[in-house]
Amino acid sequence: MSFKPDDCVTLGHGSGGRAMHELIHEFIVEKFANSQLSELEDQARIPLAQLAEYGSQLAFSTDSYVVDPLFFPGADIGKLAICGTVNDLAVGGATPLFLTCSLIIEEGLSFTVLNDVLDSMRRAALHAGVKIITGDTKVVGRGQCDKLFINTAGIGVIDPSYNLSAGHCKSGDCIIVNGFIGDHGAAVLAARGDVAIQTNVQSDCQALHDLIAEMLKVCPDIRCIRDATRGGVATVLNEFSRASSVVIEIDERSVPIRPEVQAICELLGLDPLYLANEGTLVCVAPQHAAQQLLSTMRKHPKGQHSQIIATVSDANEPIVSMRTVFGSSRIVDMLEGEQLPRIC
Amino acid sequence: MSFKPDDCVTLGHGSGGRAMHELIHEFIVEKFANSQLSELEDQARIPLAQLAEYGSQLAFSTDSYVVDPLFFPGADIGKLAICGTVNDLAVGGATPLFLTCSLIIEEGLSFTVLNDVLDSMRRAALHAGVKIITGDTKVVGRGQCDKLFINTAGIGVIDPSYNLSAGHCKSGDCIIVNGFIGDHGAAVLAARGDVAIQTNVQSDCQALHDLIAEMLKVCPDIRCIRDATRGGVATVLNEFSRASSVVIEIDERSVPIRPEVQAICELLGLDPLYLANEGTLVCVAPQHAAQQLLSTMRKHPKGQHSQIIATVSDANEPIVSMRTVFGSSRIVDMLEGEQLPRIC
Repeated sequence: MSFKPDDCVTLGHGSGGRAMHELIHEFIVEKFANSQLSELEDQARIPLAQLAEYGSQLAFSTDSYVVDPLFFPGADIGKLAICGTVNDLAVGGATPLFLTCSLIIEEGLSFTVLNDVLDSMRRAALHAGVKIITGDTKVVGRGQCDKLFINTAGIGVIDPSYNLSAGHCKSGDCIIVNGFIGDHGAAVLAARGDVAIQTNVQSDCQALHDLIAEMLKVCPDIRCIRDATRGGVATVLNEFSRASSVVIEIDERSVPIRPEVQAICELLGLDPLYLANEGTLVCVAPQHAAQQLLSTMRKHPKGQHSQIIATVSDANEPIVSMRTVFGSSRIVDMLEGEQLPRIC
Repeated sequence: MSFKPDDCVTLGHGSGGRAMHELIHEFIVEKFANSQLSELEDQARIPLAQLAEYGSQLAFSTDSYVVDPLFFPGADIGKLAICGTVNDLAVGGATPLFLTCSLIIEEGLSFTVLNDVLDSMRRAALHAGVKIITGDTKVVGRGQCDKLFINTAGIGVIDPSYNLSAGHCKSGDCIIVNGFIGDHGAAVLAARGDVAIQTNVQSDCQALHDLIAEMLKVCPDIRCIRDATRGGVATVLNEFSRASSVVIEIDERSVPIRPEVQAICELLGLDPLYLANEGTLVCVAPQHAAQQLLSTMRKHPKGQHSQIIATVSDANEPIVSMRTVFGSSRIVDMLEGEQLPRIC
């Protein structure tokens, strides 16, 4: 399907009729070209034997993406929708394999924008080694959604030698992040233009499947991994602490934060520990394996700035605290209220 | 989590912080109670061995639901979001097993509404024998979406004895529908209140997994099945005709349409063949098996009004036509433009 720069999506593109048929067959299917998608049955089909080559457990995940604006430094809603779901699979130890793509489009969205987002999805899926094999397209009237929302669901397969769970943290474990925190939140915030910030910060949006595969190779007894999206690193640590009934103490000096992100946070009264990330993982590893794991991570392009940021100890009640640069200690609780809506 | 009748969803419920934690842990997880969901990892996990008990091929499907209004005679967006995805799996011959539930909520949505929708999803999932094992919740600001959109993705497993495809239709085949067509479209249209129609028509929204299982048992060589959602029966027949390069001729006298639906269509200039259904399937079966299949379907509560409505013949070019009640013939093409937005 060819389109002119001024062409827009109409309600007819979601009607089930000829316009939708053309949009799907001649635009979306060509973009994501693969044999399963081209079948255009109501469901994609995958031989279980093919899945069994990767492991013994299916991993199944979904996220809807509503980020505002659609394009921001370092990424866009399309790349985010691929990387986010790939990461949700990969942090469970799964090899991500297949994704769905479901679009909710506001009437009047420019085809140029849609084309750019789908191209971005295509590139991100190619990089992450996943195929988009089924999907759905809805169009709603003007003012009934904000430009474009994307849902992706994904399946992957988990190798039986891995058993990652937020409930597996133990006293003595070390907690590692793979790089600077808060970049995504700061980049999206700056891109909104509703605060007068000029910054070069780019979103960290990236698929972490390859880094995680390396990590699990050198340390198959990693306790758990999560990507620190909405609610940031602080929220993930609180989830770990509660699920495992342990105390987690962060060492503020070791937390990698870019000076630009720190500056934005100070200006706006935000805490970088709660800022969203889209390519930053938090990993809990047994103490004996931590240094080797860290060194492996630092050799990977997506882990060059990895740091051990916290340690785990036994608890009467689960608490996350931080030893500050001044030597004092403060509680790092779940986020109260709302920091930044539509960050992902 | 308890709520008062006036409580509303706030942006904080989508922030990744405490309010979201409570919403998910104490409301959604309790509602859909099952062990996989309670894990609250970033991905649900299913042993491949458990899936292999049902067949040899994984079926994977997704749909986003944006129906307006949220509640309409016979169903609501929650029931629709379960039945729609269950049906997309079942029409491929799959046993539907697991679903995701991803909510995009407009700030200010009443908790009573959300509760009613989730209860409806719970009941529909129970009826269809599927578990909601993972999900996502986003909240967007007022005016950034219309009340509530739901995405479900689903997986099921296909028995190796079935091989259903829109491309398998052959000359001589019979085409069967399981009941009255257009009820969903008419019910939603009437519920919108923007046309002055008083009617008792209810949406046909229902999960077809059990009917389809019976059908495949008596006739494992069914060529293909689709549920006739957006674009209606006419669109499905056009998809079959193109995918198999065959002519399909509908016999208008045999198409089951309720007089009320016919009346609404005549009043508004709509064609019931293009009206959306959410519990109506179109099935292509070899001629020799058609009568036995029809009789099996009519014995099932969801197939009492089944009819053979069309036949397949060889084609130079794929065409769907209809022999009208007056004996003349007309082309039934893909829908041009848009009939009813946000019907599902």
